[in-house]
Amino acid sequence: MATDTAAPPASEGASAPRHTPPDVDVAALTALLDGKYAEVRGLVRTNLAEYASILEEAETLDRDAFRERVKEVVVEMASTGQTGMGFPEEYGGGGDIGASVAAFETLALGDLSVLVKVGVQFGLFGGAILQLGTQEHHDAYLARLVTGELMGCFAMTESGHGSNVQALGTVATYDVATEEFVITTHGEQSRKDYIGNAAKHAELAVVFAQLEVGGEGRGVHAFVVPIREKGKPCPGVRIEDDGAKMGLNGVDNGRLWFDGVRVPRGALLNRFADVSAAGVYESAIENPNKRFFTMLGTLVQGRVCVGGASINASKVALAIAVKYALRRRQFEASSDDHEELLLDYGMHQRRLFPLLARTYALHFAQEVVAAQLHDVFSGISDDEHTRRELESRAAGTKALGTWHGTRTIQECREACGGAGYLAVNRFTALKADSDVFTTFEGDNHVLLQLVAKGLLTDYSSEFSDLDQFGMVRFVAGMAVETVIERTNVHKLLERVKDLLPGGDDWDQEAGLMDPDYQLQMLRFREEHMLAGVARRLKRGIDNGMNPGVVFSRVQDHVIAAARAHVERLVLEAFVAKVGALPDGDLKVALNLLCDLHALSTIEADRAWFMEHGRLTVQRSKSISREVNRLCRRIRPIAEDLVDGFGVPPEMLRSPDLVG
Amino acid sequence: MATDTAAPPASEGASAPRHTPPDVDVAALTALLDGKYAEVRGLVRTNLAEYASILEEAETLDRDAFRERVKEVVVEMASTGQTGMGFPEEYGGGGDIGASVAAFETLALGDLSVLVKVGVQFGLFGGAILQLGTQEHHDAYLARLVTGELMGCFAMTESGHGSNVQALGTVATYDVATEEFVITTHGEQSRKDYIGNAAKHAELAVVFAQLEVGGEGRGVHAFVVPIREKGKPCPGVRIEDDGAKMGLNGVDNGRLWFDGVRVPRGALLNRFADVSAAGVYESAIENPNKRFFTMLGTLVQGRVCVGGASINASKVALAIAVKYALRRRQFEASSDDHEELLLDYGMHQRRLFPLLARTYALHFAQEVVAAQLHDVFSGISDDEHTRRELESRAAGTKALGTWHGTRTIQECREACGGAGYLAVNRFTALKADSDVFTTFEGDNHVLLQLVAKGLLTDYSSEFSDLDQFGMVRFVAGMAVETVIERTNVHKLLERVKDLLPGGDDWDQEAGLMDPDYQLQMLRFREEHMLAGVARRLKRGIDNGMNPGVVFSRVQDHVIAAARAHVERLVLEAFVAKVGALPDGDLKVALNLLCDLHALSTIEADRAWFMEHGRLTVQRSKSISREVNRLCRRIRPIAEDLVDGFGVPPEMLRSPDLVG
Repeated sequence: MATDTAAPPASEGASAPRHTPPDVDVAALTALLDGKYAEVRGLVRTNLAEYASILEEAETLDRDAFRERVKEVVVEMASTGQTGMGFPEEYGGGGDIGASVAAFETLALGDLSVLVKVGVQFGLFGGAILQLGTQEHHDAYLARLVTGELMGCFAMTESGHGSNVQALGTVATYDVATEEFVITTHGEQSRKDYIGNAAKHAELAVVFAQLEVGGEGRGVHAFVVPIREKGKPCPGVRIEDDGAKMGLNGVDNGRLWFDGVRVPRGALLNRFADVSAAGVYESAIENPNKRFFTMLGTLVQGRVCVGGASINASKVALAIAVKYALRRRQFEASSDDHEELLLDYGMHQRRLFPLLARTYALHFAQEVVAAQLHDVFSGISDDEHTRRELESRAAGTKALGTWHGTRTIQECREACGGAGYLAVNRFTALKADSDVFTTFEGDNHVLLQLVAKGLLTDYSSEFSDLDQFGMVRFVAGMAVETVIERTNVHKLLERVKDLLPGGDDWDQEAGLMDPDYQLQMLRFREEHMLAGVARRLKRGIDNGMNPGVVFSRVQDHVIAAARAHVERLVLEAFVAKVGALPDGDLKVALNLLCDLHALSTIEADRAWFMEHGRLTVQRSKSISREVNRLCRRIRPIAEDLVDGFGVPPEMLRSPDLVG
Repeated sequence: MATDTAAPPASEGASAPRHTPPDVDVAALTALLDGKYAEVRGLVRTNLAEYASILEEAETLDRDAFRERVKEVVVEMASTGQTGMGFPEEYGGGGDIGASVAAFETLALGDLSVLVKVGVQFGLFGGAILQLGTQEHHDAYLARLVTGELMGCFAMTESGHGSNVQALGTVATYDVATEEFVITTHGEQSRKDYIGNAAKHAELAVVFAQLEVGGEGRGVHAFVVPIREKGKPCPGVRIEDDGAKMGLNGVDNGRLWFDGVRVPRGALLNRFADVSAAGVYESAIENPNKRFFTMLGTLVQGRVCVGGASINASKVALAIAVKYALRRRQFEASSDDHEELLLDYGMHQRRLFPLLARTYALHFAQEVVAAQLHDVFSGISDDEHTRRELESRAAGTKALGTWHGTRTIQECREACGGAGYLAVNRFTALKADSDVFTTFEGDNHVLLQLVAKGLLTDYSSEFSDLDQFGMVRFVAGMAVETVIERTNVHKLLERVKDLLPGGDDWDQEAGLMDPDYQLQMLRFREEHMLAGVARRLKRGIDNGMNPGVVFSRVQDHVIAAARAHVERLVLEAFVAKVGALPDGDLKVALNLLCDLHALSTIEADRAWFMEHGRLTVQRSKSISREVNRLCRRIRPIAEDLVDGFGVPPEMLRSPDLVG
């Protein structure tokens, strides 16, 4: 019915153009999405199909057995080269960081315990050794960890300290007499918690602790600490299993306590700072804050990977829900003798297609951030400014990508009704396993605050090395007006003034499908919101309010501004990608998706645009109508668009939904 | 910090009143929420605490053992009288339908497998025997099912037929020679599916099938069919286990196939229709559609119960998240020497408090629908109109209540960070178990269509007994303009015209905190949306479009209009409750919540109000500011407000979050 075989209704105008749906070449679409890493993505797809039984094993094995099975699969996948793409070739790696992100993302089409175990072993543990350590550490560990022979964990988070890493309580004291560090857990808030690989498999831990040398605190540093030998905890180390989790039960998360555990001086991962035998602390980075954030910045790959994984998990959910809606009939609507396909209902299209369009948008935005990561970490463009931009973009894409994953998986599950509730139909695992993505590798709200802080401060200013994680500290720790006057924000206020209502009329005259119009709308919102935040912060401080109170009151605007910024980046990525395509049916199809994404993004915040004089009532209503119309135009190609994701059929499972 | 010990900022006006937080009497608040069923709610709370180990058993026992344990708990709870409140006293019940709903709702504070098992046994199975059967069936089954000795299931849903019950494919043919019904499953789409109690425990099933008598189809009727004896399927019955589900794994859902299963003539639940020995079909209700919906209407209690359960599950999530946020500190914000409580961050308040306010609103709306159910089914007010109103309200409250549950549990889980992901901390079970509520007992979108249909048709008109579940059929099967002219909708269009922009200025001059203003806004939206739907339907049909296409295009408006209607009912219930309270601190506290609920509801749809001339830009912004201000005022009493829910401490579990 919604495929519009009837004549267009009068309300759309007698001259409304009839659209022939584009003829989508699914293989070409997959090739476009896979991009330059088609080969490694292909390898991962093959491996996923090879180990497809893991989806069922996740249900049938008990927790211990499933953990062992996941470990086994991870090690076997490692032998294909899939998981070591990011390590130098001399240690058995692939020497290609971009390929390593692509491999990880693609792995998210399958069981997510396998994904997270890979992330813990090769991304967090391996990444810390690689990025924070030096030659000696690389020689000692990399070759064995790349094969999975040496398992490790990444012991940063503490029970009482999640996103605020600078406040963690584990202490490493240098003992000059023995040339050792003594590592100790101070109180229950400082136990390491939720540490993947800790409960069962890790022999080593990279432990983040407050370094003390000669009685002086030097801030958080990382140490390689043996925690388990032949399956038993090392002396002074206590290990507890975190037990059952909502999902990801193939990963052995645990807690760690250290009671005066001694490690040699060489255990300090000393790329950015070292302690001499005699107990002299040395670092090339003088400012302790800057040093801390430089160290942490090297770990940005984790965020890029989690964002990409969430986007790919969304693809699985959408593929199932769209295919189900093309199979399942419900109610006789347009004829008396057969029930209608779910996907021919307007509401069903409204529920699924904007999410489908957004998945494409985020895919291309993810491609941009992954490419930046590759360039920065391959030394292609590694200046301070580019690094900061990468960190901000990674944080923002991770936040939007993971929220999108949670929302999409939920909507798709509901769109599959009762059948969606059976474990065999995939949503059980997808929902439970992906749920933690919104809060790990940085809670999404904290990450957006980081993005906002980046926007509010000039990268070259003295403020840039302040607390990466806290707009809170940023506001609390200084007179905010100084920042506003010194930095971009000042220029920004000027720029926004030019765009205020009463200015030009671009927003009235431009076509809704004009990408320039769509982008201008998102740019206006971003800059206006940002300026508003700066103004409110300044006013609060000027009024003598406690900075904490000021921050608390402005916090929702801070988050909204950061979100607006990332939304703009996402749309830019999508528009650029489509714009670069040669004319043809593929371009037509992606243009439909890009328009749907842009307009449904504006529609979702149309109240704000009206409040700020950038959208008339009439135009706002037109946008909603256009979103519906685009949904109808996407309907005939919906299956092609999910097939283009290239999800291996074995990963869809769901015999009752898509079989 | 957000407790506002600082002076109010200039932006709020120097004369902004200082508010002393109300002193909330938690016991009095609980008494108010418990209402007239405090006693039975108390009994359930005691039972929940008694069987608190079930929360842990849900994790530690394997599926089979957990199913047995849940059955055991259900039977033991039955012996306290808790689960039989709705059955007549002569069969060992409590003879109080309102008490039965209250008991069920309260049970949702605990393990939800126990809840759903109770719902299946006493609500669906027992309810069908009670409501669709006659004396003979009551005498044969009720006493034994009330104790849980006789377990049964409710076999309505089929794999290919969920919400569209009228289309189901199981057939019951009357064999006049043997005076038996012969029940047969026709094809895989017609197997009964997701049937609780079917996989293990049920001896009997109430089977819904197309009745055929003398070669003539008589529509869907219900039959009592033995499916299992001494643990083995009865001859001709095939039973399959639905296997692992996302949650509710203590309930044994299964599939049923019938291959010429013969049951005696008395197996027909014959309250509304019967077949004589000679094979003559008789019913006091002549119209087959009306008969069908009368039968189904008696089962409305299930929807009322699921809605109430979701609202109570939300209370558990909120209690944990609020208590955690009063314990967990993160980042130094307002001072250098301690980190700030999560609940003192504005964003955190924004995330939790509107959901808290809405939980209160829905609680009181649920109280209204439960009271209506009691009155209708106790014969206190049982006319056609009241029944229709009850069905509509039950459908709407179920939809909004269950969506609220899913959303609240998710937000609370994220607000508890990584700790929220551990199974011991309650969200795992809450999320997984409650997830299906949005799609069972009627998919929420289908239910809202039912609500919309009720609004569009006059109850007394000939259209009222058309397909209860389908606006689709409603549009497809008739000339819609006839409806519009004949019914309320016509008056409605007139009424809305009077309210269009350019009319009076009530919305400009009224105070935002004036409940009349808040209600008028929601009433305007409801009536305007409804009239818009009617107009669009008519226009489409007038233009000669296929009714299916017309419906598909208007469907999102249909859903929105129904939602707007239910939102208005919810706010009315809350306003009425608060208005009736004696002056005092409790009233002050609930007024804050009621204002927050009303304004955040308007805020969420402020784009629509602006688009329809009922909200100026300035006023829209004021509403957002007021929502933030209300959040700050609720902050000091937040813990009292969740304590008022009276969740037994054992049900919070979460040693790491609230311990």
